[in-house]
Amino acid sequence: MRFRNKPWAKDKIEQYPQYIVPNPEQCRGKWKEAFERVQPLHIEVGTGKGRFITEMAKANPDINYIGIELFQSVIVAALDRLIEAELPNLKLLNVNASDLGKYFAKNDVDRVYLNFSDPWPKTRHEKRRLTYKDFLKLYEDILVDGGEIHFKTDNQGLFEYSLKSFSQYGLLLTFISLDLHKSDFEGNIMTEYEQKFSEKGNRIYRSEVKYQNEK
Amino acid sequence: MRFRNKPWAKDKIEQYPQYIVPNPEQCRGKWKEAFERVQPLHIEVGTGKGRFITEMAKANPDINYIGIELFQSVIVAALDRLIEAELPNLKLLNVNASDLGKYFAKNDVDRVYLNFSDPWPKTRHEKRRLTYKDFLKLYEDILVDGGEIHFKTDNQGLFEYSLKSFSQYGLLLTFISLDLHKSDFEGNIMTEYEQKFSEKGNRIYRSEVKYQNEK
Ligand SMILES: C[S@@+](CC[C@H](N)C(=O)[O-])C[C@H]1O[C@@H](n2cnc3c(N)ncnc32)[C@H](O)[C@@H]1O
Ligand SMILES: C[S@@+](CC[C@H](N)C(=O)[O-])C[C@H]1O[C@@H](n2cnc3c(N)ncnc32)[C@H](O)[C@@H]1O
Repeated sequence: MRFRNKPWAKDKIEQYPQYIVPNPEQCRGKWKEAFERVQPLHIEVGTGKGRFITEMAKANPDINYIGIELFQSVIVAALDRLIEAELPNLKLLNVNASDLGKYFAKNDVDRVYLNFSDPWPKTRHEKRRLTYKDFLKLYEDILVDGGEIHFKTDNQGLFEYSLKSFSQYGLLLTFISLDLHKSDFEGNIMTEYEQKFSEKGNRIYRSEVKYQNEK
Repeated sequence: MRFRNKPWAKDKIEQYPQYIVPNPEQCRGKWKEAFERVQPLHIEVGTGKGRFITEMAKANPDINYIGIELFQSVIVAALDRLIEAELPNLKLLNVNASDLGKYFAKNDVDRVYLNFSDPWPKTRHEKRRLTYKDFLKLYEDILVDGGEIHFKTDNQGLFEYSLKSFSQYGLLLTFISLDLHKSDFEGNIMTEYEQKFSEKGNRIYRSEVKYQNEK
């Protein structure tokens, strides 16, 4: 899907500056002003087609959301959902997660969601995993003190790696489910990948970790 | 099994003081002298019938082992294995893990094994779980700096709980497998419970954590 070229995607994105923020670096340090209401901001890194973030924004009008997706050909699907739902508390950014620091300042963000991030199973690609220590540092630098990462995946290797990476970084594990869909966790909102892989019978793993700020 | 009364168990245990240490408090702080060879000491808490610890002792003659088991009716099965195998590097203790501090001093132990510990699923029994924080403190107080806990279970709830408890305590997660028998982990030695529950099709979870000593 992400490799299917959509030459019209760029034009479409530019048509909706109220949804896909055109110059996000100008919002750095003042994201509160970019939304209708001043309230906590949760971001999803690697939003894909946007099912999760759109449903979250619908279910939680008292939280602002930003979905971040690298590929234009993918983010347009999230844009379609947003146009349809007309949500004042959701925006999209068509940027690379490696550049988060350009677009967000310390304390801009209250929570980071990572859902079904690309697993990059080869050891030599470790640095590309969104739970690699350099990414954990990027998130720390934009989150409030005590900020959280909520992470779901069906990929066992990525989940094992991430738990070790979180621990190594000094993050506190506050929630873990090793079989989310068979647990008593309430209010789960499924992502596109979650729907697809749970239908195949894969287990869904989920964790919440928290930055522990030394006082 | 542990509830089947074995009135002869006590006598049998007393017959083998070279294997089931009769006055372990006298060895506190000097376990090195209790074995033929001065070498690292690994203990298993809740040894059961002793398959794991006996096989470990056979496979690793350069490590001393102690299996700790509360029930006489259970430890006699481990004793039978030990009598059969005649291992100089394995001893058994018929004591309660809650009293570890009576029998071991700081630096006596290099590693703690927990295998298929009783899950105590009810929240009001949390304190009985061998990965509850008070037990993590007991282990810390007898382990060397940087000492490790190696933990296996098929119980999803206990594993989830334990990962949180380890994190909360400040332990570093250095190894995790969410499906040990389908992983490339080498040299696994199965416990009695592991054989039984993996035959039933249960996944086996395994983790290694390390005490991080502030310098
Ligand atoms: C496997 S998909 C999962 C999509 C969605 N979260 C879900 O669960 O259905 C991962 C998505 O992350 C995006 N992505 C990967 N690396 C990224 C990066 N560095 N910055 C922004 N997006 C990224 C990919 O383009 C892809 O759409
Ligand atoms: C579920 S069995 C597992 C036995 C063995 N480790 C295995 O994997 O086959 C747990 C064992 O731990 C022992 N145990 C539980 N609590 C204990 C305690 N506080 N001190 C010593 N042994 C204990 C029980 O008597 C039982 O034999």
